[in-house]
Amino acid sequence: MSFNSFGHALRFTTWGESHGPALGAVVDGCPPGLSLSEADIQPFLDARRPGQSRFTTQRREPDQVRVLSGVFEGKTTGTPISLMIENVDQRSKDYSEVAKAYRPGHADWAYDAKYGLRDWRGGGRSSARETAARVAAGAVARLVIPEVAILARVIEIGGDKAEGFDPDEVARNPFFCADADAAERWEALVDDARKSGSSLGAVVECVATGVPAGWGAPIYAKLDAELAHAMMGINAVKGVEIGEGFKAARLSGEENADPMRPGEDSPEFLANHAGGIAGGISTGQPVVVRVAFKPTSSILTPVETVDREGNAAEIMTKGRHDPCVGIRGAPVVEAMMALVLADQKLLHRAQCG
Amino acid sequence: MSFNSFGHALRFTTWGESHGPALGAVVDGCPPGLSLSEADIQPFLDARRPGQSRFTTQRREPDQVRVLSGVFEGKTTGTPISLMIENVDQRSKDYSEVAKAYRPGHADWAYDAKYGLRDWRGGGRSSARETAARVAAGAVARLVIPEVAILARVIEIGGDKAEGFDPDEVARNPFFCADADAAERWEALVDDARKSGSSLGAVVECVATGVPAGWGAPIYAKLDAELAHAMMGINAVKGVEIGEGFKAARLSGEENADPMRPGEDSPEFLANHAGGIAGGISTGQPVVVRVAFKPTSSILTPVETVDREGNAAEIMTKGRHDPCVGIRGAPVVEAMMALVLADQKLLHRAQCG
Amino acid sequence: MSFNSFGHALRFTTWGESHGPALGAVVDGCPPGLSLSEADIQPFLDARRPGQSRFTTQRREPDQVRVLSGVFEGKTTGTPISLMIENVDQRSKDYSEVAKAYRPGHADWAYDAKYGLRDWRGGGRSSARETAARVAAGAVARLVIPEVAILARVIEIGGDKAEGFDPDEVARNPFFCADADAAERWEALVDDARKSGSSLGAVVECVATGVPAGWGAPIYAKLDAELAHAMMGINAVKGVEIGEGFKAARLSGEENADPMRPGEDSPEFLANHAGGIAGGISTGQPVVVRVAFKPTSSILTPVETVDREGNAAEIMTKGRHDPCVGIRGAPVVEAMMALVLADQKLLHRAQCG
Amino acid sequence: MSFNSFGHALRFTTWGESHGPALGAVVDGCPPGLSLSEADIQPFLDARRPGQSRFTTQRREPDQVRVLSGVFEGKTTGTPISLMIENVDQRSKDYSEVAKAYRPGHADWAYDAKYGLRDWRGGGRSSARETAARVAAGAVARLVIPEVAILARVIEIGGDKAEGFDPDEVARNPFFCADADAAERWEALVDDARKSGSSLGAVVECVATGVPAGWGAPIYAKLDAELAHAMMGINAVKGVEIGEGFKAARLSGEENADPMRPGEDSPEFLANHAGGIAGGISTGQPVVVRVAFKPTSSILTPVETVDREGNAAEIMTKGRHDPCVGIRGAPVVEAMMALVLADQKLLHRAQCG
Repeated sequence: MSFNSFGHALRFTTWGESHGPALGAVVDGCPPGLSLSEADIQPFLDARRPGQSRFTTQRREPDQVRVLSGVFEGKTTGTPISLMIENVDQRSKDYSEVAKAYRPGHADWAYDAKYGLRDWRGGGRSSARETAARVAAGAVARLVIPEVAILARVIEIGGDKAEGFDPDEVARNPFFCADADAAERWEALVDDARKSGSSLGAVVECVATGVPAGWGAPIYAKLDAELAHAMMGINAVKGVEIGEGFKAARLSGEENADPMRPGEDSPEFLANHAGGIAGGISTGQPVVVRVAFKPTSSILTPVETVDREGNAAEIMTKGRHDPCVGIRGAPVVEAMMALVLADQKLLHRAQCG
Repeated sequence: MSFNSFGHALRFTTWGESHGPALGAVVDGCPPGLSLSEADIQPFLDARRPGQSRFTTQRREPDQVRVLSGVFEGKTTGTPISLMIENVDQRSKDYSEVAKAYRPGHADWAYDAKYGLRDWRGGGRSSARETAARVAAGAVARLVIPEVAILARVIEIGGDKAEGFDPDEVARNPFFCADADAAERWEALVDDARKSGSSLGAVVECVATGVPAGWGAPIYAKLDAELAHAMMGINAVKGVEIGEGFKAARLSGEENADPMRPGEDSPEFLANHAGGIAGGISTGQPVVVRVAFKPTSSILTPVETVDREGNAAEIMTKGRHDPCVGIRGAPVVEAMMALVLADQKLLHRAQCG
Repeated sequence: MSFNSFGHALRFTTWGESHGPALGAVVDGCPPGLSLSEADIQPFLDARRPGQSRFTTQRREPDQVRVLSGVFEGKTTGTPISLMIENVDQRSKDYSEVAKAYRPGHADWAYDAKYGLRDWRGGGRSSARETAARVAAGAVARLVIPEVAILARVIEIGGDKAEGFDPDEVARNPFFCADADAAERWEALVDDARKSGSSLGAVVECVATGVPAGWGAPIYAKLDAELAHAMMGINAVKGVEIGEGFKAARLSGEENADPMRPGEDSPEFLANHAGGIAGGISTGQPVVVRVAFKPTSSILTPVETVDREGNAAEIMTKGRHDPCVGIRGAPVVEAMMALVLADQKLLHRAQCG
Repeated sequence: MSFNSFGHALRFTTWGESHGPALGAVVDGCPPGLSLSEADIQPFLDARRPGQSRFTTQRREPDQVRVLSGVFEGKTTGTPISLMIENVDQRSKDYSEVAKAYRPGHADWAYDAKYGLRDWRGGGRSSARETAARVAAGAVARLVIPEVAILARVIEIGGDKAEGFDPDEVARNPFFCADADAAERWEALVDDARKSGSSLGAVVECVATGVPAGWGAPIYAKLDAELAHAMMGINAVKGVEIGEGFKAARLSGEENADPMRPGEDSPEFLANHAGGIAGGISTGQPVVVRVAFKPTSSILTPVETVDREGNAAEIMTKGRHDPCVGIRGAPVVEAMMALVLADQKLLHRAQCG
């Protein structure tokens, strides 16, 4: 029932608004004795940080993380790790219009309907800035699962799919794309959207390798259900798939089978349609998740709306925005994958030793 | 951390295996004073019950529910409601081969890897029979949200999409299909799969109307994240979408906008690309979820596998199975929708009065 | 927020009313591979069972437990263990007066104030019969902590304290008393109360030996806080102490010290004022809890009250009651101790490996 | 399973060590629209603040709170409220001896046994400084329950009981004592302990008036169980009683009865032995809790102990300490009472509307 916490054995709570003084995360349940300093977290925040290319919002935030508790002489102590990031480049006056009328597709109306008031500065709590706290927490989670490697990449922008796969390419372009050709095409695509004040959707695929068989649990704690919860909760996400996902609905049982062969320590699989999860439990194969990001609703074309008094209005979102929020979604998807897997590792250890 | 519980304010726990003496659900947190008898639950179980047409498994289970607690003189008392359904048509010997080797695509290997042992009779806890308990719990949840109407229907089987939409049609064919023409086509399609010992996937769409604006909560308790968790946890589900879902990733911000106009009590929307949820909170529009079911892995074609000792083997799943598990998924999707919404109604009331 | 569940990693949910068809517990999160049959549970239920001496209620309940799920070929499978006990000796008509007026000291008025209605038959859900489900769940918990031995004994009835301590004596008298002399005195004491339709309070002390150092966790998951929650939630309990308890408030720091000396594997302690817990974490010493049970409010002396319409009334509790509920509290205190410790063992393993 | 969170519907998480840069609390689930500023919190922190008389530790901490999120234009927004208090008067070198050997009665050994390492500066996370975060969170909770008045007072120090009761007196002496005579006696008593480097225990009683009938819930969410958990988790607490508490174990059913008479809106009670709770649910009477604080283990008399290598040692706790930690426990007990009641109010609203 904690609206702002996630996880069970490894559990984190985030706080903070887009234009408040700071935002942060408290990570609880971290195993003791892990080496942790701000330098372990900062690179992941830097990857998500805005303002690094013309393809993301121009808000300039250093996103410098401070570790305020839970670490002593360079090691985690098992007590809560408090992480804080100060906001430094707020321009709340850009949002004065948002105070009065609802931006369709944004959370403005829903927040007002629920709470009777909202912090309209930069979207307040509903801003994607909150994902910085997830990324910081995710960096801690990675330390809990050194056996796992996680790579998220954008595989589609505005309907244009990447084809090639070179993992080293992901860090070389501003799109987290593993296909150099696609990355080049997307430059033009996203530039066009940006210049015309439009926006584009994207699909992110995330693969975790090294997950041993046995993580997750049946019924209401399924690994895939936890991942679906984690990913669907990211701002702008409208769809989540595991393995073949929706395509599996169009395959026959024969086509969708993942035959098994004797392996060294555990069986080998001849295919991975299942995306590494069966019955809610990891099989030892790579865990594969795909996440659909909608185009941001912040566009320069005026949209019909209503104001707080219920009168007809038009709104055009100024402020500074990502023309394609899905791009910066990649590090966030990676963080949520790490947080889910680290939590599941500890849960598995609790029950099965 | 309860592996077999779901929900927060309205929380249910299920138990039971496919071939054990019984299965059941304990529903906790139900508001007091609601009229409840077995007759309120049975129709939903009957809709999900197998053996009603040749398109589902031929296991004959009456799925008769008993209310063992929490109701006094026909009213809920606010104490836990224990629901029990006896298993009557187990044929465990059909599964003797499953005891020795792993069925690829099933949870057999993953359970063994996690727990070191498994109840192999009919899939044990991983059997879709568990969903009977969800459906029973879902019937209680519906009483908590009389303002909401929920309809799930199969919109696609084996890649063949239904086009028409007549809600009354859903109860008239064995496919929970709102399009009489598609239902007719599917008879042949599913028959073919059944006769050839193959299996088919399906897509189910579920729409909840009457959900007021304001249910759900930001960040890690988003209504869409809760729904994604609920749906991805159903047996055989590999994908979940809200509103436009993956299609939203291919739309521009202009195309995906849901403009608002002044309405009587609250704004009217000119579109519902968002599927009734913004920022994790309901907007007052219909809540729209789509769920992808894979084809069941139980097929008559032999598949390569390994046995418990790690030797190469082949397995062909006999037993009694659904040629398309997605069909009977429709009542389960409805139940999970009801359980999520009822829970969110109570949670909203807790925080916002 | 589950009102009827307890525990975190090992979590159980109970259901059922005093005069309903049955009551039960669902134990979730139990490690797999433990040997479990009904015979492992029944002895603990028998110890708590009423009607075995003239010092407890004369309701005759066999309290026969059935294991409905979670066990396969004699081993726990890691899936939920459903335990059910049928009620066979209800006499609801004894309670017809209770339907109309509130028994002071009982939950009657509070339930009506909260829920607007109540199952008045035998106290419904508020009956101490629910503790049978705890005892059954506790028997499962014991299997999780074979390294721990738990002994609860009544140390005081109606202000008369037991002095001697012979652990073997506990099973020899109907009072769970480790002092044969006190047990003899209590026969007369409780008989007097029973014959005059009065009731007596009691104090139960429970000691768990073999608990290793390191179970529990700081701040809001302290082992002592968990125990306090567990014990204060037992029917009729009004006080909980750890170690010296209230007496510690009257000692000086010097008197209350537990000096430490080098030991073989871990330090030895020269005293145990702390009751085996420091900073919320076990120290390796015996864990010592004391629990105060009030005299049951069911007495034959008429007490002033009001009826459901708010009119003045008098009530005299007929039905069948324990003259000293604290006696049968001993097995319940043991069960709660086992449930807390088993849970903490798994939680410790989750975080610290 | 969150080790550092408390509450269900209104849930708070604390973080921070005694000698780290800061400590804080994140309060989640707070209803929206409540007026909140730092001025609403500071007076409660000031009451708990050390260094205000010679009877508490001489560590000088301003305990200035900052509200970092969750409030907009002076109103709570329903999103998490992050509260931060900076540490300014750490003197870690006082604790160098504590790094090497275990202080008996402190959490030193237990933390090392659990985590393999510990932040020994000022007790790290186990320091009573953490209670500042509780007090800050408690101030927010009070806003949720304006109908309730809470008063905690010290009723006993070192075995010397206060007799008189003048609520206005509580704020007039440094002992939170409602009896001016006792306060005078305690000056000498605590001075003696302080000068001789000894320490004293205390008993705190807390009464909440204005709690309506119906808060709390049966079985494992009992109001008294929640209070027991909350209070037993406060540093140095070893016992918790509700109403008559342990004394109830020495009363007969007749003596312990709380007869009821017709009242205006709800029944009137002629006594309150139960402490305002029956069956785990509030009755409308004042809720009465008593809490036993042990004498702090930090004394100047050398105590036998072992060092980290397991060798025999002696330790004498220097640093700055409270001669009677129970005194400053009073504001902490009040805070926990407020946090439990506010949570229960929201939980009751969730289920019962």
